Formats: sequence, C-alpha cells, structure tokens
Amino acid sequence: MILAADRVIAGDGKTVLEGAAVCVRGGRIEAVGPLETLRGQFPGEPEHAYPGASILPGLIDMHVHIGYYYEKEDAAAYRENPMLLALFAADKMKKTLQAGVTTVRDVSSPLGIAQTLKKAEQKGYVRLPRIVTSGQGICMTGGHGWSMTGAVCECDGEWEIRKAVRRQVRDGADWIKVLTSEGYRGCELAQSELDAAADECRRMGRRSAVHAGYGASLDMAIQAGFDTIEHGTALTREQALLMKEKGIAWTPTIVAFTYIRDKMAQQAAQSGLELDFGYIAEAADIYARNFKELYDTGVTVVTGTDQVMDDAPTSPVARECRYMVEYGISPLQAIECATANGAAVLGMGHELGQVREGYLADLLVVAGNPVQDIAALEQVRAVVSKGELL
Amino acid sequence: MILAADRVIAGDGKTVLEGAAVCVRGGRIEAVGPLETLRGQFPGEPEHAYPGASILPGLIDMHVHIGYYYEKEDAAAYRENPMLLALFAADKMKKTLQAGVTTVRDVSSPLGIAQTLKKAEQKGYVRLPRIVTSGQGICMTGGHGWSMTGAVCECDGEWEIRKAVRRQVRDGADWIKVLTSEGYRGCELAQSELDAAADECRRMGRRSAVHAGYGASLDMAIQAGFDTIEHGTALTREQALLMKEKGIAWTPTIVAFTYIRDKMAQQAAQSGLELDFGYIAEAADIYARNFKELYDTGVTVVTGTDQVMDDAPTSPVARECRYMVEYGISPLQAIECATANGAAVLGMGHELGQVREGYLADLLVVAGNPVQDIAALEQVRAVVSKGELL
Amino acid sequence: MILAADRVIAGDGKTVLEGAAVCVRGGRIEAVGPLETLRGQFPGEPEHAYPGASILPGLIDMHVHIGYYYEKEDAAAYRENPMLLALFAADKMKKTLQAGVTTVRDVSSPLGIAQTLKKAEQKGYVRLPRIVTSGQGICMTGGHGWSMTGAVCECDGEWEIRKAVRRQVRDGADWIKVLTSEGYRGCELAQSELDAAADECRRMGRRSAVHAGYGASLDMAIQAGFDTIEHGTALTREQALLMKEKGIAWTPTIVAFTYIRDKMAQQAAQSGLELDFGYIAEAADIYARNFKELYDTGVTVVTGTDQVMDDAPTSPVARECRYMVEYGISPLQAIECATANGAAVLGMGHELGQVREGYLADLLVVAGNPVQDIAALEQVRAVVSKGELL
Amino acid sequence: MILAADRVIAGDGKTVLEGAAVCVRGGRIEAVGPLETLRGQFPGEPEHAYPGASILPGLIDMHVHIGYYYEKEDAAAYRENPMLLALFAADKMKKTLQAGVTTVRDVSSPLGIAQTLKKAEQKGYVRLPRIVTSGQGICMTGGHGWSMTGAVCECDGEWEIRKAVRRQVRDGADWIKVLTSEGYRGCELAQSELDAAADECRRMGRRSAVHAGYGASLDMAIQAGFDTIEHGTALTREQALLMKEKGIAWTPTIVAFTYIRDKMAQQAAQSGLELDFGYIAEAADIYARNFKELYDTGVTVVTGTDQVMDDAPTSPVARECRYMVEYGISPLQAIECATANGAAVLGMGHELGQVREGYLADLLVVAGNPVQDIAALEQVRAVVSKGELL
Repeated sequence: MILAADRVIAGDGKTVLEGAAVCVRGGRIEAVGPLETLRGQFPGEPEHAYPGASILPGLIDMHVHIGYYYEKEDAAAYRENPMLLALFAADKMKKTLQAGVTTVRDVSSPLGIAQTLKKAEQKGYVRLPRIVTSGQGICMTGGHGWSMTGAVCECDGEWEIRKAVRRQVRDGADWIKVLTSEGYRGCELAQSELDAAADECRRMGRRSAVHAGYGASLDMAIQAGFDTIEHGTALTREQALLMKEKGIAWTPTIVAFTYIRDKMAQQAAQSGLELDFGYIAEAADIYARNFKELYDTGVTVVTGTDQVMDDAPTSPVARECRYMVEYGISPLQAIECATANGAAVLGMGHELGQVREGYLADLLVVAGNPVQDIAALEQVRAVVSKGELL
Repeated sequence: MILAADRVIAGDGKTVLEGAAVCVRGGRIEAVGPLETLRGQFPGEPEHAYPGASILPGLIDMHVHIGYYYEKEDAAAYRENPMLLALFAADKMKKTLQAGVTTVRDVSSPLGIAQTLKKAEQKGYVRLPRIVTSGQGICMTGGHGWSMTGAVCECDGEWEIRKAVRRQVRDGADWIKVLTSEGYRGCELAQSELDAAADECRRMGRRSAVHAGYGASLDMAIQAGFDTIEHGTALTREQALLMKEKGIAWTPTIVAFTYIRDKMAQQAAQSGLELDFGYIAEAADIYARNFKELYDTGVTVVTGTDQVMDDAPTSPVARECRYMVEYGISPLQAIECATANGAAVLGMGHELGQVREGYLADLLVVAGNPVQDIAALEQVRAVVSKGELL
Repeated sequence: MILAADRVIAGDGKTVLEGAAVCVRGGRIEAVGPLETLRGQFPGEPEHAYPGASILPGLIDMHVHIGYYYEKEDAAAYRENPMLLALFAADKMKKTLQAGVTTVRDVSSPLGIAQTLKKAEQKGYVRLPRIVTSGQGICMTGGHGWSMTGAVCECDGEWEIRKAVRRQVRDGADWIKVLTSEGYRGCELAQSELDAAADECRRMGRRSAVHAGYGASLDMAIQAGFDTIEHGTALTREQALLMKEKGIAWTPTIVAFTYIRDKMAQQAAQSGLELDFGYIAEAADIYARNFKELYDTGVTVVTGTDQVMDDAPTSPVARECRYMVEYGISPLQAIECATANGAAVLGMGHELGQVREGYLADLLVVAGNPVQDIAALEQVRAVVSKGELL
Repeated sequence: MILAADRVIAGDGKTVLEGAAVCVRGGRIEAVGPLETLRGQFPGEPEHAYPGASILPGLIDMHVHIGYYYEKEDAAAYRENPMLLALFAADKMKKTLQAGVTTVRDVSSPLGIAQTLKKAEQKGYVRLPRIVTSGQGICMTGGHGWSMTGAVCECDGEWEIRKAVRRQVRDGADWIKVLTSEGYRGCELAQSELDAAADECRRMGRRSAVHAGYGASLDMAIQAGFDTIEHGTALTREQALLMKEKGIAWTPTIVAFTYIRDKMAQQAAQSGLELDFGYIAEAADIYARNFKELYDTGVTVVTGTDQVMDDAPTSPVARECRYMVEYGISPLQAIECATANGAAVLGMGHELGQVREGYLADLLVVAGNPVQDIAALEQVRAVVSKGELL
C-alpha cells in the first residue's frame, strides 16, 4: 500500500521530506519518495491519502509495565484471576497501538504475560505492538517494586542475582530490568550486586535497564555499566557526561512524575486541603529545570511513559515529547528520542525507528505538522503496525 | 440511529415489513416503520442505509461451549495457561458477534470463564454477545463430557446433584446443564438423579438443559421435565408430542453432527481409507430424515451449533437454519427458531428475539432476502449488539 | 505355524483328539486335525514338534491381583516407587505366561497398573497375557482389603458405591470387584449396597465378582446377583443350586488357602511351636470336604489362584486343577474349569478357552498326558500367546 | 562355558588372536586360548560355537540418557506415569544389551531411574548392562537441558553447585554430569562455578563429565579439569593436546549429530522445503573434517551415542565406530575407543573392556571380521553380559 501525506519525518532528528509518500509491502518499507514516483514504481498499489498530515515512524515507549494492575482499587480481582488480567492487558496493548506506539519495552510485568500475549498474537487472537520484555524485575529484598506480586523478584547477593538473570533469560526475557532506588533512598543493591547483574547480562547476551533516581544509586549504576538508566531524576551533568562516554542511555519518564503531581494537585484543589506532594513534585520540577542541560551533554535520550495510575492515559509518548520540547529541545529532536533513539538502544537501529527503505513498516500518521507543533503527535490519523494498517 | 434496508423481518415467523426501517436509541428499539415516518419522528438521528438488505433480530445460538479448547492439538497449553484461554475465548466471542449472533447460551464451560468475560466487558476490555451461562455441566462419574477438565463436574446420586446445582447457582450460573447420554449409550444418570436435577433447578429458579440423544435417555429426560433437550438425535414423534405438551423445547444442533461427518468424509477421501463414521454419520442422517416430522408436532425448536472441532466455523447459526430449510421448513420458520423461539425459551420473549418497539436492540443486517433464500443469512452487512453498531 | 504333539485336548471337558495338530495363523487357530492333513492344507507352514506332549488351551486364572506387593517385607519400597512396582508386575506377567496362563482376570490392583501395562504392551515394551481388569476393588469403610493402598476404595451407601462402579468403568475397568466378607465376618456391605453394586454393573454393561466366604455374605451376594462368587468357602449345596439357577459362577481358589496353610505348617514345624491356623486351615479343609458335592450341583466352576504371599508360585492354575482332581472330579473336568469355563464366564466363550477352528490362538503344550495325570499340566513345553510362540 | 569363534579381538587396539576361544566361569573370563587347549583345561564345559565370527569385549556406550522420553509425542504420558517410564526404560536396556553394549554411562536421567532399575535387577525382574549413572545433570538456571523435567537441576554459584554434587552422590551417583553450552552459546556457567564443580567431584571421589561444545566453554571446561568432555564439537588441536596433557578424555558423539541431520534432511526431502539445519548440520560436518586430526593428538577418545530422538536406534556404538573409521582411524583403533578406552576412563581398565584372563565376562560375538570391515560390529551373533549368555 502507499501512504500519502504532506510530509515524511524520517525520525533521524533532521530529515523531513516534504511531499513524500511511503510504500509498504511485506511488512517492510519498500520505498520513500514523491507520490508520483511511487505510483510509477508500484502501479496498482492501493493508496491511502491523508491530506494535511505527516508520516513518521511508529513511536517507541521504552518504559511500560504490561498488565500493571497494582494501583487498581480492585487489584485483588486481577491478582486472583489471570483471565481477567490477560483481557485487561490485551485491551491496553490495543490502546497502545491506537496511540501510535508500535514498539514497547516492558520493564517488568507479572511473569509470563508478555509471552502469553505473543502466543495469542501468533494464534490471531490479539494485535500487539512489538514487545521487548524483561519478564520480572530484580530488586533487593524490600527494594523498590518488591510488592508488585509476580512482577518483581527479590534477590540478595551476587549469586541470587545471577540466578535471577538466568531465570529471566530462560523464561523468554529479551532485556533484564534491575531496580535500585526508591524515592530519596538512593541506594538499595550493593555495588557488588549491581556489578554481578550487569556482568551476567553481558555473559548471557542481554541488555539491561536499571531503575535509579537519586544519590549513590546513579553513580553505582553507571559504574556497573547497565545499558539504560530509568528515571535518573537527580542526574548531574557530570553523570550524564560519563553515561555518554560509556554508552549508557537515559529514559527520563517525565510524564510519569508530572501526571501524578497534577493528579494530586487536582485532588488537593477538590478537597481544599493543602498537601505536600514531596518527592513526586520535586522530581517533576527537577526535570523541568535540568532536562535541557542533560540533553546537551550528548547522552542518548529515549522516551518512556511508565504510567501506573489506573486512570492514566495509555503510553502517552506524544505527551512525553511535548514536555521535552517545553523544556528546551526541538520537536525534531524529541521525535528522534521517541523513534530512532529508542530503536538504537534496543539494538534494532538498522531496521526500526526510521522511515527508510528496507526498514520495518511501523508508521504513524498524524494530522498537522509536529515539526512546527509537537502537540500534533497526539492527533493520530492512522497507524501501520507490522506492515498492516490498524 | 436509524437503520434502513429493503425490509424488516420481525422474527415472529410471519411478519415481514417491506420498506421498513428501525430506529435504535438507548439500547432499545425505539420504533419500526417506514423510513420517512422515522425521519419525521426522530429528526437529526444518524442514518445507516443498507440498500438491497434485510434487517432481522440478532441470532441466538442456544448451544455453545465458551472456551472449548479440548480438541486443540496443543490443548495442554490452554489448560495450563488461563491467560491464553481467556484471549482465545474473547476472540471467539468477537467472531460470534461478527457472525450476527448477538446472544449465546453457554451450556458448560471451564469454571468461571463466562463470568470473567462479563467482568471484562463491564470494564470495557472486550465486546460480547449476551451470554446466558450454565457454568459447569453436571454428569455422572464417567458420563458424557467428564473429561472436559474444569467444565463438567461428576455427580452421582440425588444429593450430590442437588449440591452441584446449588453450587453452580452460587457461582453465577443462569441456567443448569445436565448430560446423560453418550453416543448410543442411551442412559447415564438414573431417573431419580434426573428428577432431582430438574426439581432442584425449579427450586432454585433456574431453567435447565439436558444433553440426551438416544434411547431411554430421552424418555427419562422428558419425564424429569427439563426445559430443553439438547441434540435429541433419536427423538420420536411421540416423544416430540409429549415435549410440546410439557413445554419442553428442542435444540437439534444439526450442524454439529453434519460438520464432523463432512470433515471425516473429507479426511477419508484424502487418505483413501474406507472409514465407518458410525454414530456421527447416522445422527446426521437421522436429522435429515426426521426433522420435518418432529417440527410439525409443534414442539418448540431452537438453534444451537455446538461447534467443538478446532477448525469449525464460529457459531454457524445461519448454517443451522439452512439445514432446517433443506429438511423441509420455510425460511421464516427457520428464522423464528433462531430468534423469537430462542428468546422465548430463555424466558426473554418479552424483550428479545424480535424487531419490535421496546425490544432490546440486537439486530442483524444481511445482504439479500433470507425469506426467499435462507443462505442470505450468511451475508452479514452489519450487526447491532446491545444498541451499538459493531 | 503348525504345532504337532501326541494329542489335542479341546478344553470343552470331553473332546480329546489323539494325533491331532494345530495350525495357527494371524493370531487365530486356523485348523485342528491330523498333522498330515494340515501339512497338505498349509504347505510350507513352519512346524514345531512336541513328541510325547499334549496341546490344550492356554489356562485362565480368574483370580489374580496384579502388582500385589502388600505382603512383601519391603512393601514401602513399592508403595513409594511406582517404577519398581511396574517392573515387578511386568516380571510377574512374564512368569504368568511362562506357566501357560494366557488370560488373567485381575480382581483389584493399584489404580491403573493394568492400563499402564497394556499401554506398555502396545508400545512393545512388555509381553502380557490377556488381562481382564477390575481396577480398584470396592469395600465398605474398614471392609476386607481396605488397607491395600490404592487397590481398594472404601464406599458406604448406595450412591457412593454406584459412583465407585462408574469411576472404575471410566478408568478402564472391564469387570467390577466387590468385597464383602472377612474371615468369619460374614457380612460387610448391606443388602441395599450390594444390590446397588450389582445393579450399577448391569447398567454400565460390566460383569461383577464378589468376594464372599461365609455366612450371610453368600446369601446376600447371590440375591444381589453378581456374576461370580470368589472363594465361597462355606458355600452350601442349596446356595450352589441357586447359583446354578441364577447363572452365577464359583471361583473356589483352593490353592490360595492351601498354600498359606502349608506354609504356616512348615513354619510351625521349623519353630517347634504348636500354632492354630484357624480360619485359613478350616477353609482349606472345607474345600477338600465339599468341593465335589458343590461341583456336582452343576454350578459353573472356574479356576482362580489368588497368590498373595511373597514367595508363592505365580498363577499356579495347574496346581488348582490338581486339587480339584484330588477332591473328586476328572482331569478333563478340571481342565474345562481352567479353560472353557473361564472363557464362558468372561463372556468370551465363542472365541476363547478352546482349541477350535477360529478361536484365539492361546495354547499350552505340556509334556505327557494330563488327561491321565493332571500333574502333567505343570510340565510346560511351550506356550502360544496371542498367536505367537513365547 | 566356552565360546569358540574364528578369532578373539582383545580390545587393546592391537591384539587379535586368530583361532582363539574364551572360557567364562563365575562371571569372569577364566581363560583365552586355542579351543583345544581350553577343552583340555576345562573338560565337560559346555561349548557355544560361532563359526565365521569374532569375539570381542562387550561395547561401552559412554553417553546415554536412561529413560529419555522428552522427544516423544506423548511425553506427558511418561512424565505423569512413572510406571510407564520404567517399563520403557527397561525395554531400552534390553535392546541395549541385544546391541552388544554391556556397559553404559548414564549422563543424566530422571531422578532415581537408574537406581530403581538396579534394584529391579537385584530382585530378578529385569536384565541390565552395567550402569554407571550420574543421576541428575547440573546446569545453570536456563542452561542446556534445564527443561528435561527431573533429569537436570539448575544451580547457580559455587555453593549451589557443590551442594548439587553432594546430593547426587548421596542419591547414588557414580559420576557427575555438568552441562555448560547450548548450540553456539559457548559458555553458560562461569569459570568459578565450573571450578567448584570439578573440585567438589574430586573431594567426593567421583569422576565428572561436562557437556561443552563451542567457544569459551571448551577452554573453561579444560581449565576446570573435568574427566571427560562430551561432544566437544568445535574442539581445536591445541585444546585436544591440552586435554591429553591433563588426562581429559573426549566423547565426540558423532552419531548423535549425524542421526538428527540425516533425519532432518529426509524430512526436508519429503516435504520439498529447503530447510536450514544450522548448528546440527555444521556440527556433523565438523566431526567429518576434524576427527582424525584430533584423534592423532593422542587425546583419549571414547564412544558415546546420545540418541534422544524417539525413533533413533538404541545405543548404536557400532555405528559410532563406523563413522570413526570413515573419518580416518583403523577398525582396531575404533574398537579400542569402544571398549578398553571406555573402561579406562571409567576407572575400570583393570577388569573391564578387554578379552583377557580375569576380566569381567562381558563379551560380544559378531559375524565376520570387524578388523577388516567395521560394519561387522552390527552383525550381533551373541552377547555375554555379567558372565551369562543373553
């Protein structure tokens, strides 16, 4: 099929092809070029026209938790009923696709849910974005996330951690997720434990993400050498430079903190009480203040949304991009974070995250021109996932 | 909304309104009448036009098994993974709606799957037909269906059976399903057991269906007084007259036997072997021979499809109607079996199963005129389920 | 193949064909007749010559317990290790065949062992006699045999018993075994329970055997109408006549009691103690005294060996026949009990238990002439089981 | 008894005694020499003559998995039914003996099956080759073989591994088996884990085998100092020299890879598809290319067959020898690998694996002369196991 809009935004942070169209065949991007040229090359190919719209790569959400039900009022109903949990998760994945997010990195979920969803997709029961899964997250006993039943395993000491890494790999994990900070508590796992985790990931051929927000946790995680730092709330310029040097990427997840802060403010306003939003509000403020300076160090930045509140929007990558632009970078740069950067960090930069010949056909068509107004990213007109129009 | 087609088939076995349209509001049928009249009555109401098509009530499948996975090659994967089972069942329900079947009676399924689906529908994760569920079926130890793990409970003796009825009711069953024959084995449960089952259903305010096909099982089931007899393969004219007298309906499930016979014949043809299809083939033949005579006794006939083979079509009520017409009744009669009759047997005749003012808005729009050619039922143009266009 | 010996004993209690040979083909007896005639009819057929020997039907042991390990010193090793139990049972079955016993009726064994052996035979792992199995025996709570872990189920009341019958049938039982006396305790199950058991067997199309030895148990069992009475130690002439009238057969199991009595006597002699062998010795004596009178009533008598002691011979049907002759009947009659009678009681009289054209090829070749000296039955020269030479 | 054939092949890689016979008494080889001499020494000793045949030591299969059922279509039936598993394994052992393989090293099997078989042999239920068992294999979490339910235990870190070694010893293991590579994944366990395994085996007085095929796993295994390397597919000349120096033997298991490759090729041919046999085919090719060069380093080579496919031949040591000859060594050398070498590696070189006075009487008689044509090894005429003719 040929998709025709006003322009193609390649996703590489610079290229915008005005008047270009895209031809998709066999799950891949067959060609990108002027509509007339493509019509000549592929006569009879069905066309979908989106006047006034822009075509860009499907978005990549580097921080989701598939089947995250822990904040639901009736969480017990989900914990006790895997059928209900599966139907909930499948519906979330459908909404994720509808938001133009065609790839997600799952950074810990109840054991096996991603594999089951993939099996169900093979059988034709559901439609999914590409899922890169970490299976269960790894934290110390009582560490961040420990109470997410089934989605996190508590480990202590080098060998329990190595075993946990191996178990995730055995059970189908593409990535490994480690968690080592909680609010201001800046260090949970010991350096030797973090080192063992990062080393075992390398031995097993898996990339690794680490949840680290404050204080010593950041230095320790950088030293251990994980592939991405999640949140990195109190990240300093020096740390960011070191990350750039060591090839560690950053997933700020601005929208995660901002959403909760705004929701708390709203509740406070409604109740008339004065509330101290503490850590969350501070985190949201820090991003507003520091994001541009950290971005400018050259550290690779990717988009992650980490929406855990029950009524939160599903995978608001577009909103994350909006915050990034608000905090100082250009729309093209924000789109690069949400597309080419994510793909590169996933090790799929050669075939994902750009609108380029031969690349996987994951595409997003939005009304308007996001290069001028990043908010256009939220005006979804069409989504192509795995070569098929949604 | 207003649906306009060439005609409305009411579903009552006689009424056909040429040129009539239907107005749907708030989940109910607001009005049925000439398009111009409705336009006048409901100015500004959105219209959907289906030229050349017919509107009839959504079909009712009185014999389905939700989540029936037992014939799958990889059945163990479903038995061990309730998540996968739920995703499979949800996909089946979607296909059921797409076939124009807006109500199903589930006559035994793995414990709780119907309740979970309904809960997921309330939460907006899935879209379902109306489901009337029986929970687990009840059979004697080793009786028909006993090996359907989780979907059937083995009971023996009056009191175990009464207890099972109460347990199903406690766990959310709308109906009770009893099974008492297997192939030619014409009687499994004893008369006292069948009597206890039917009596306990009456005490608990639930209607009851009984699987009975041959020999003594039919006489015994009629004597006990269940509300519907499922299959009733070897039913005689005398038995049908007695059923009419006692208000017992009949679900022949012709397509269940015919599908398996044809599939076996196809496999035999491919393999070059001469196979004896035994019981199944005979059952299919009996329907062809006896259906019209039994229908003519005045016994209430409803449509059930009971498709258990893995590659079978989902809920082929239309095909069941086609067989009924082939075996001697009129298309209007067959449609009545699949709509008004089913609703009446479900105790919902006052608001379901007909295209009539005030009735629940479950509608099927098919290309052509099924009154002239029943095969038109398979040409689905649109489905309205619970007041919403699919 | 052609088997040639000095004579063929048909097994029907009268026919002895001097100089006859037997031709076996495709698992059946193709022909019986003079060797020269068979050679003419089946030129090139391989021959096995047994000069001085007699050919008779393979013996039938109507009372065995497959995998009976309960008297072993290290019984716990078998209870906890099903693998060891299976290897033990398979070896017993091999020895059974080697003793010329080509059919056994298993009258209760640990759940499923007979089915597993049959599955292993289908896969070619083991060689077995024909096995007619009863699965678990049924007794009242605390009734005879209740402590045979896994081989007996305790039931009370009509419906628990009916359920147990159905469960055995579901799990593959060909017969049903009920136990209702223990030593002199002449009645365990109530008449209504025995009636239910026998009735449910008829409903389910299964024959039934009942362990009953003394007092009321015999009258009650006869009244309920089981198909065979096992042991029947204190049977009276009147009861035997009634059994004949109702078509109930008798399995005396003389060798079971005699073997234990002799073993106890031997131990007493070795230890120098005077022991009271009580019930067992009395039972052995009763058989010696009454057997001929009971046989003469015309009740059908079959052979069962019931060897439970750990060092007992495997399936000594030949020895059982020896006792019968010693107690007054002719060798030909004893052989009939061990062959044609057993087959008839099993409902296989039309194809098993006789050396006759068209019958199943289960044959025993013994040195000498058992018609003159029944002890010859123990001189096994060759065994044909299911058409194949052992 | 005296066995007489045309020649005796001692098994030491050089000695062939034309015209020699062997006298066996009390489970041992009493004498080897000219038939006439033996007749004089042991008058009245029963004789078995095999004209045209050769006598050699019973073969030794250094790589079998007793009760390996994991590739069966109905694997669940075996996993759930230990009785069936035991009967299957016993039948396999019978077939192993019939193939002339009188000793097997079991390199991981479902817990306890070898011990149960040995117990059953003591009780006289089955006949077995000599079994040297490793009990459960040891791998890292998710490492090679982890999914062989019950036959492998997942361990991580030095102390879990030491504990696993001790547990196998406690439960009756004669050897220890470690697994540390999977296809091209060249290293699973860390060096410290491998070192701990090899060290604990030495402390506990057990020899050890390690599954290692590619890359780093081979260097690491050699450094740790296991007694045998299993498969060693990508072994280099330098590694083989180091193995020779450290006294580590090599079990190439050529027939394991070749069998699967040929089977896949056959399936591809039948289906008409072009398949990539990948790792397996490459492995088979590597053996063909490198075997001779590695053998010539002087590393001790033993025969192992590792047949896991359901329809594979049982313990085809003869075929393994055939491949070795095809790839460049002499028949006498191949026979030495399959007899004396295996015995030496098992630590039994002083009494097993050669036809020599005083040695254990495990013998194989084959038609023809395998020194001239190694294929003669497959023409089994007779087998003596533990001093008894099969």
